[in-house]
Amino acid sequence: MSPQVIPPALERLIQDLTKLPGIGKKTASRLALTILRRPAGEARELAEALKGLHSSIQLCSCCFTFSENDPCAICADLKRDSSLICVVEQPGDLLAIEKAENFLGHYHILHGVLAPMDGIGPGEIKIKELERRLDSGEVKEVFIATSSTVPGEATANYLIDRLRHKSVLITRLACGIPMGMDIKYADKHTLARAISSRSKTT
Amino acid sequence: MSPQVIPPALERLIQDLTKLPGIGKKTASRLALTILRRPAGEARELAEALKGLHSSIQLCSCCFTFSENDPCAICADLKRDSSLICVVEQPGDLLAIEKAENFLGHYHILHGVLAPMDGIGPGEIKIKELERRLDSGEVKEVFIATSSTVPGEATANYLIDRLRHKSVLITRLACGIPMGMDIKYADKHTLARAISSRSKTT
Repeated sequence: MSPQVIPPALERLIQDLTKLPGIGKKTASRLALTILRRPAGEARELAEALKGLHSSIQLCSCCFTFSENDPCAICADLKRDSSLICVVEQPGDLLAIEKAENFLGHYHILHGVLAPMDGIGPGEIKIKELERRLDSGEVKEVFIATSSTVPGEATANYLIDRLRHKSVLITRLACGIPMGMDIKYADKHTLARAISSRSKTT
Repeated sequence: MSPQVIPPALERLIQDLTKLPGIGKKTASRLALTILRRPAGEARELAEALKGLHSSIQLCSCCFTFSENDPCAICADLKRDSSLICVVEQPGDLLAIEKAENFLGHYHILHGVLAPMDGIGPGEIKIKELERRLDSGEVKEVFIATSSTVPGEATANYLIDRLRHKSVLITRLACGIPMGMDIKYADKHTLARAISSRSKTT
């Protein structure tokens, strides 16, 4: 295919879109062509939203989530329990937990997981900052909610080990069968974990 | 979840992204959070690409594809066969056919398919413009390459009927089993079409 078949302005947008996660060349083309077919106002609106993103959002200096204010809405909320800190990998995990609507403590965003192969050690994620929060003595429980992936588990185990000498209760997110799932379709690792973590009926 | 948990600038971008095809609330959140985690320069670059899109791209006045020049690179290419016109639904279909690298004629973009339920009749897509191109007498073959969906087939059949009295050869894109597919996994409609369109071996 001759390169000039795709107009350069379109090609540039396609290239930029493929940098995003989960967006390949085909999806990027489809998105770009849709944007082009729709009114120019929609593209401008999206462009403005992108431009305003970094300038108006910063990291909360307490929990390190993305926020327009410092401290963030959660850290500033006096109705939330500041003695309970939920540790997550990324701000997106905080949003997922907030959606469950049954956690009323504070958060701490690590901004990553331990990945020695990629050069990410304890100094590269916000662990020292977590320890500093615990030093105030106000925190009673650290609830580790990293993903149940290999790096997520490794990070959780490292944290458990490192915080062992602090006088706080350390808890983990429960692992098991997803709600509504037929156990026939659960993978054996999930099932093994669900069996060993079986809970008493009340 | 209290609404202020998601910063308004982030929420605005998520809302704008969900307007794109195939992007739901979850994907939009993931994309927006990734953009936010990466350097501001990348978001700015994407914003500029979006802004420049409509201002630098127009429709080719001959084949109606998106192009920075009028006529487009294909219509202006003297090495291509102007007596053969491939009719497609959208500019994205043109790109797909160009990738196959075995079509060397010109194109005509309908910018839609007939969809009476949505109020899209023959006057809403570029059929009159196609007829006008045929009136010049230069075109010998109209190759209809609409999708093999219900509206795509309906549009093809309408075109065949409407162009019947013109002295041009009308051809259709072949339907059959995709390359490399095990026929066990082909759906019965595709298989039926592949059987009735079976070709002689040479």
